[in-house]
Amino acid sequence: MNLLFLGTSAGVPTKSRNVSGIALRESKGKGWYLIDCGEGTQHQVLHTKLSFHSLKAIFITHVHGDHCYGLPGILASAGMGGRKAPLTIVAPAGIKAWLEATCEATQLCLPFALEFIDSDGLPSVEFESMAVSTFRLSHRAPSYAYGFTETKVDADLNIEKLTQKGIPRGPLWGQLKQGFDVEFAGEQLKSHDYLISKHKPRKVVIAGDNDQPDLLFEACAGAQVLVHEATYTEEMTQKAGDVGHSYAKLIAAFAETVQLPNLVLTHFSPRFQLNPHASPSIEDIRKETENAYSGSLFQARDFSEYTLDKAGRFSEVAGE
Amino acid sequence: MNLLFLGTSAGVPTKSRNVSGIALRESKGKGWYLIDCGEGTQHQVLHTKLSFHSLKAIFITHVHGDHCYGLPGILASAGMGGRKAPLTIVAPAGIKAWLEATCEATQLCLPFALEFIDSDGLPSVEFESMAVSTFRLSHRAPSYAYGFTETKVDADLNIEKLTQKGIPRGPLWGQLKQGFDVEFAGEQLKSHDYLISKHKPRKVVIAGDNDQPDLLFEACAGAQVLVHEATYTEEMTQKAGDVGHSYAKLIAAFAETVQLPNLVLTHFSPRFQLNPHASPSIEDIRKETENAYSGSLFQARDFSEYTLDKAGRFSEVAGE
Repeated sequence: MNLLFLGTSAGVPTKSRNVSGIALRESKGKGWYLIDCGEGTQHQVLHTKLSFHSLKAIFITHVHGDHCYGLPGILASAGMGGRKAPLTIVAPAGIKAWLEATCEATQLCLPFALEFIDSDGLPSVEFESMAVSTFRLSHRAPSYAYGFTETKVDADLNIEKLTQKGIPRGPLWGQLKQGFDVEFAGEQLKSHDYLISKHKPRKVVIAGDNDQPDLLFEACAGAQVLVHEATYTEEMTQKAGDVGHSYAKLIAAFAETVQLPNLVLTHFSPRFQLNPHASPSIEDIRKETENAYSGSLFQARDFSEYTLDKAGRFSEVAGE
Repeated sequence: MNLLFLGTSAGVPTKSRNVSGIALRESKGKGWYLIDCGEGTQHQVLHTKLSFHSLKAIFITHVHGDHCYGLPGILASAGMGGRKAPLTIVAPAGIKAWLEATCEATQLCLPFALEFIDSDGLPSVEFESMAVSTFRLSHRAPSYAYGFTETKVDADLNIEKLTQKGIPRGPLWGQLKQGFDVEFAGEQLKSHDYLISKHKPRKVVIAGDNDQPDLLFEACAGAQVLVHEATYTEEMTQKAGDVGHSYAKLIAAFAETVQLPNLVLTHFSPRFQLNPHASPSIEDIRKETENAYSGSLFQARDFSEYTLDKAGRFSEVAGE
């Protein structure tokens, strides 16, 4: 599973950072999921190897513009690029109404169907090799986190159990290995009862804007990675009086409490410069986080790519 | 008056060209007008010296997404940047409804007022130093051209006329020179009756998508510059069977007929490469246009800037 950041700025784009958008690639094949779609996300995609044909679903964390204003354009471009396959959009209810109003007002007729799933109902959604759960967060608008868990984990046959059961080596073993349930001696045998997973399912949680990281306690169970906003430092939050966002220390303390192995921060206020000597610099956020969190910390930049391998090891992919 | 192209691609952005957006700068001061606002226009603006504080109005030629999907984001960013001054938006009626739906759905509360003017009524709009007329075009959606004429032309006093009238040299002359009407001997004297313009008012016409250039006959009277789409070559139009757009030869023939001094082409199909040796290349459009048009031809690229001086000379500004 790979994470590719398409935008890491909060609220407005800067010269070097776009607003929110994250591509989550499946471990096999070209399939990918888009989480949030700020304006200009399609432009960022042009500079990657991602194709709109292999986009499996779009997840919107909340209705604020820096997380969704790129939706009409990305859908229009996917249509002009010849996409025909239906596309699932998991988003707060307002997004469906807005996209319908947009299609109507701007004469946008998509050549593929949109299948909306309302995140306000905290849905669990199954894709071919991914299960996605929804979790409620705290923000000025209803905001959600999405937990992505792989469902097709490499597995070996449990030979001991098969032998005990008296199931003869042959086609039945093959079917069970491939994940199919089979009938044997009048009994229905479940594939997963006769398989031993080679590794723990990989799980990545991607959260929208949120000022109460504690709400992610359940979501983070079994997760190797949490992607969360760190819009400000603690000092800046107090000065700004801005509500609804997390600051570095707040999310760091939560990640430490749940012993999260890997924390990826994003959605930095546009005031933060990439230059470590500038003020304020995103180095300020790094320092504040590291003071309270002992796991592996990553600060996303636009086009940063990370990979989560089968053993649960998470690391940045070196740029080309 | 300066023209700065923020996007020159039709329909979808490419790696090197954004969708439609043109900044028209006034000859004095920092005031500017934005004509069309495709997705990512605000990102392009970040790479110029233009400020959202000095944006005087936005004109939308028609409702298709590649001409308007950048509106919500640019307004939101202007608001977050502290703009308080009201902003005029001249656009087809659908745009007002769509922006209202967008504000509602995405909780966008702008800290400045929007003043909508419906282009379907072919309005004439006056700004401090610019008069704008609207002209109907032909496209799949109602589409318009906007003619920008400067209203504050440098002028000398008509001394002969002032003397003939017996108006004494002094404060009255000063007021008339500055454009104020005055009272003299019980009579109301109009400033413009006692001024001799130093040059012809500058006029630039910027057209939306349009497959009938002849509709611009009236708009182009007295204009030094027409900005028009040339989405395809003639051959490509025939192959594509696409309706609603102009091809190079079509707009060239019109420009030749009206003896237009300067023609700027833009809105090229994303299939056209900038590389002159590629196929198709925007050189193909240049050649087809030059075969039918003897005036000065310009093919806009993203961030191309042109200036129209007081003498009506139009030229490209050398990049920095």
